[in-house]
Amino acid sequence: MTPRAVTYRRLHEIDNAMGTAVTVQAMVFGNRGERSATGVAFTRDPSTGEKRYYGEFLVNAQGEDVVAGIRTPQPLTIAMKEATGGSLPAMEEVMPDAFAELVTVFDRLEAHYRDMQDIEFTVQDGRLWILQTRSGKRTTHAALKIAVDMAEEGLIDRDQAVARIDPASLDQLLHPRLDPDAPKQVIAKGLPASPGAVSGKVVFNADDAERMAASGEAVLLVRVETSPEDIHGMHAARGILTSRGGMTSHAAVVARGMGKPCVCGAGELAIDYRRARLSAGKIDVAAGEVITIDGSRGEVILGAVPTVDPKLSGDFATLMGWADERRRLRVRANADTPGDARTARRFGAEGIGLCRTEHMFFEEARILAMREMILAGDGDGRRAALAKILPMQRQDFIELFEIMGGLPVTIRLLDPPLHEFLPHEPEEIDAVARAAGVDGAALRRRAAELQEVNPMLGLRGCRLGVLFPEIYEMQARAIFEAAIAAAERSGRAVEPEVMVPLISDARELAMIKQAIDAVAKEVITESGQPLAYQVGTMIEIPRATLQAAEIAEHAEFFSFGTNDLTQMALGLSRDDCAKFLERYLQQGIFEADPFTTLDIAGVGALVEIACERGRRGRSDLKLGICGEHGGDPATIGFCERVGLDYVSCSPYRVPIARLAAAQAALAAAGTEAAPD
Amino acid sequence: MTPRAVTYRRLHEIDNAMGTAVTVQAMVFGNRGERSATGVAFTRDPSTGEKRYYGEFLVNAQGEDVVAGIRTPQPLTIAMKEATGGSLPAMEEVMPDAFAELVTVFDRLEAHYRDMQDIEFTVQDGRLWILQTRSGKRTTHAALKIAVDMAEEGLIDRDQAVARIDPASLDQLLHPRLDPDAPKQVIAKGLPASPGAVSGKVVFNADDAERMAASGEAVLLVRVETSPEDIHGMHAARGILTSRGGMTSHAAVVARGMGKPCVCGAGELAIDYRRARLSAGKIDVAAGEVITIDGSRGEVILGAVPTVDPKLSGDFATLMGWADERRRLRVRANADTPGDARTARRFGAEGIGLCRTEHMFFEEARILAMREMILAGDGDGRRAALAKILPMQRQDFIELFEIMGGLPVTIRLLDPPLHEFLPHEPEEIDAVARAAGVDGAALRRRAAELQEVNPMLGLRGCRLGVLFPEIYEMQARAIFEAAIAAAERSGRAVEPEVMVPLISDARELAMIKQAIDAVAKEVITESGQPLAYQVGTMIEIPRATLQAAEIAEHAEFFSFGTNDLTQMALGLSRDDCAKFLERYLQQGIFEADPFTTLDIAGVGALVEIACERGRRGRSDLKLGICGEHGGDPATIGFCERVGLDYVSCSPYRVPIARLAAAQAALAAAGTEAAPD
Repeated sequence: MTPRAVTYRRLHEIDNAMGTAVTVQAMVFGNRGERSATGVAFTRDPSTGEKRYYGEFLVNAQGEDVVAGIRTPQPLTIAMKEATGGSLPAMEEVMPDAFAELVTVFDRLEAHYRDMQDIEFTVQDGRLWILQTRSGKRTTHAALKIAVDMAEEGLIDRDQAVARIDPASLDQLLHPRLDPDAPKQVIAKGLPASPGAVSGKVVFNADDAERMAASGEAVLLVRVETSPEDIHGMHAARGILTSRGGMTSHAAVVARGMGKPCVCGAGELAIDYRRARLSAGKIDVAAGEVITIDGSRGEVILGAVPTVDPKLSGDFATLMGWADERRRLRVRANADTPGDARTARRFGAEGIGLCRTEHMFFEEARILAMREMILAGDGDGRRAALAKILPMQRQDFIELFEIMGGLPVTIRLLDPPLHEFLPHEPEEIDAVARAAGVDGAALRRRAAELQEVNPMLGLRGCRLGVLFPEIYEMQARAIFEAAIAAAERSGRAVEPEVMVPLISDARELAMIKQAIDAVAKEVITESGQPLAYQVGTMIEIPRATLQAAEIAEHAEFFSFGTNDLTQMALGLSRDDCAKFLERYLQQGIFEADPFTTLDIAGVGALVEIACERGRRGRSDLKLGICGEHGGDPATIGFCERVGLDYVSCSPYRVPIARLAAAQAALAAAGTEAAPD
Repeated sequence: MTPRAVTYRRLHEIDNAMGTAVTVQAMVFGNRGERSATGVAFTRDPSTGEKRYYGEFLVNAQGEDVVAGIRTPQPLTIAMKEATGGSLPAMEEVMPDAFAELVTVFDRLEAHYRDMQDIEFTVQDGRLWILQTRSGKRTTHAALKIAVDMAEEGLIDRDQAVARIDPASLDQLLHPRLDPDAPKQVIAKGLPASPGAVSGKVVFNADDAERMAASGEAVLLVRVETSPEDIHGMHAARGILTSRGGMTSHAAVVARGMGKPCVCGAGELAIDYRRARLSAGKIDVAAGEVITIDGSRGEVILGAVPTVDPKLSGDFATLMGWADERRRLRVRANADTPGDARTARRFGAEGIGLCRTEHMFFEEARILAMREMILAGDGDGRRAALAKILPMQRQDFIELFEIMGGLPVTIRLLDPPLHEFLPHEPEEIDAVARAAGVDGAALRRRAAELQEVNPMLGLRGCRLGVLFPEIYEMQARAIFEAAIAAAERSGRAVEPEVMVPLISDARELAMIKQAIDAVAKEVITESGQPLAYQVGTMIEIPRATLQAAEIAEHAEFFSFGTNDLTQMALGLSRDDCAKFLERYLQQGIFEADPFTTLDIAGVGALVEIACERGRRGRSDLKLGICGEHGGDPATIGFCERVGLDYVSCSPYRVPIARLAAAQAALAAAGTEAAPD
């Protein structure tokens, strides 16, 4: 390679760096003999973030030679040489003068740019030339350490340190990951649907997962795709693998919510339920054999691979502390189970923003009573069936309230369409009918009656509450009795927030709130205990955003259910859009997946209308968001701008949300944003 | 009955009439002997509207006696007596003085109230007392005649005449109805889903309907419920009867659109497809036997019942002419076929506001090519299949353009999800696979791939155009070639309006418009003919209303697709809401069925936003509505207030819309509204 070409590349880079037309510049040569050299250096270690010079150089060479890897480069410092046990002499030894000058430059550049620098240099006939400097790329670990160190060194302030970390990058710290040194045999690739790595025995159905997990086995649930009936198996499994479905499939969304590793849509896998086997090319894996999935990379790996646990102390904790001092938005978690709630608190959640109650009806002991309720012909029959569920549901809430120790807990009343609780396969229908002691034909008829063309827009949410008031009455009673019981046991007041889903009109909410208030009054009278509670609603139907002023007259809080609001505002079914979303992203019609980052121009516009009108209806209305977007940094910036009070997200995204909320507050105050 | 009680009733009525507290009033008695009497009278004939006094009276009686029907009342006038051939003497004969005084009162009251009066009177000892007067109820026929006559008599002006007629009441004039004198044996009741009465032979599937209709038979299609695959049978049948589904079911909506009588959800009927029989209690009707349905009353009647045809001339035509002079809104029709288009013109439509093109793919000759396209693996395969449909579709458009004779025609590009074009039942799948020469398994696989959880929010509308651009390219070519051909034949310019459905973002429309424009350029070059056309979009996704300014930069017109906009804005599936809509109406959560009358607070708010923002994006943007709401008088009032340019509705609702539009214009100008 000729010096001309080299120089051209340098000019090109400089040009890019300066953002102007090509400029003419003197050329220097690192290949003029033994007193010439070229190298790249970092002012700190880009892998660990430690404050020590780091880099490589080659004597009598040009920049390309370092990059090309033809000759083995030499270490920059004696310390590096010793650390790696290499035999080649360090620059510090062979060119001490140039090295000393380089060190001075390092300090000057860091002081000027207030960030770790990635520097290209050349030595020509003993004289040092700096070709380029820029902020250096680094691992998340290094980024945290550098930001905290620099703040402590006084190079930057704490706000700048907070602003420097990409919130999304924290995700790789929060989950166990594969030991990078362990060998692995990848047998299939899918989508990295929920981060973290985990090994376990393969099971092909939810019941096996639950049974084996109960006997202490680590299992991975492997399904073509999952449905709400698999929830108990997903809870029991350590990770989930599917051969079909995208990043927003049921498996992916639920796994992320549970903070469990998940690989989705691994299309190369053939899953044969009957033979209880999965095959990937020539490799066959039977039920009970061990595999590993890496949900951060979408890999399916044969056998067990050791994993490394996340560390949440040290620089991470320091920086999160600084972030917490800066943020205005509160951060809650979407948590349905005691396990979720504990994880949420460990990650610093300040409450539960969304506790879905439907999983409480799917557990084996309850699903029979639930089906009995669905098959009942009248309110009395439904009430009798619900009475069986009440004590179990009350116990669920007591546990949640105790774990949350007085922090706010928002509980959403039953939301999914009833047909989700009925079996669908003919064999299963007969089995369930036998178990429930009803006629198989009656069960089939009821299931057919409940079937819907567009369940997303059907009989669900508060519409269930309007048609079958006894369901919400039972749930309200379970919540209030649990709040009183938990307060008695802990001596700490519990103020539950009852959230009514799918409201589209103020009259709908007024009617349901009246029933909830009546139950509260009964419970207060029966128990002789005081009880404070709030009633609010999820804003997830476009009409509700327009009617927010009227609705707010009956609601103490709004929580934006941006998953469903996105589906309705964009006319886009999350379960069906995988077929065309990719094309929409490729062609730039959508800038981002609207189920990951809030569509600010559409859904965001509705949220803004609802905030403005809602506050007009009730000036102290509490506003939050509990869709998956609540854990997305870009969305959190929007939430700060429109003045929400809190965001709520998957427990594992709580730290991301805390940092993003701090950055959003800093951005609002005019402080620099994170570098990209 | 005592005079006291009578007086109480009168006071009560007077109180109602005056809207104030009960007042004290002198009592008069019609039962004081032969010189006393009581009666009710109308200043014109409430049945025909003719200007002749009409009424009944009883000598020596009180008001209740007339109403109770215990004694046979006597006619008011000699003319009435002669017309009915009765033997009892008329009041004109037995109480000539009181009658003469009554006539004077009639004229004075009509002149004062400027409307036909319904009067209660009593004669006590030869002296006339008027107990009450109010505007009289009348048939629609009478209402039209009275309004036109009074305007011509100078009692009211033409605007008042226009304002007097309830637009919805016209519906009973526009369809054939059962001869009121004919006997009928009603065997079941269902919902009055689409007005009009018709008799025909029972058929149980669409193919039989088509075959028998082709051989000149009048048939009624009887199904448990209908789906888009039944369209050809619905076109062929004279009426539709279903045992399941509500006022907004597929059968009801399509039948109204076609202007065919339809009775829906006649749940007492058991329909047995295998035995080709329907039974209602003990009555069995086999395929080929004749029944009659009355879609205005929801009746299913055994055998044929004679019907009476509507008359659209005379007072109706006069009043519609006056209405047309007053209205600002243009009225178009939703018309998919030549038959629809002809009906639309007959009823005074000023263009087609929505021509759906999907039915053009369902006809037998085309569905094979359509399925071939769906099964094709690539764009070339799809183009080859579409090339077979092109000449047929072009011919459809030529015919429509010719019928419409230069009036604007808005053609919506393909909208429904592709799975609607595939067979669903296993047997049918195999038959279709054999006919199409493809593998049954491949067809099943493709059908399974295309299946959707929420088809309303799935791969349909312009999303098909983004994924498979060749579909819209074929359709644009068919439209443009047809426009040129029709213009050549008729010598009259045709300017088609190409409507892109389900747009949610400006970039989506920009991309599709570019492809349409490219096809237009090609057609112009190939034909050497000039071609003017417009490209616009349906606004039916909530996000589109918020992005209207950006979208309008690429659209020459917006047509509000309020059916889907209602479904998405309210989160309410039209196919699924029957289960709970009734309860919502009963409990007053909804004031009206939102699929019949536009939900102004929600959907209307979005329409207003879209109008305002759309005009900001393009000041001369043409705005219309083409959902079923376009024919609803209350909605038309809203359309006038927000300044739409046109409404488009079912052909049979065009006169209703014309009158409602005139009343809306009068209301906007401050003229009195119609009495209720």
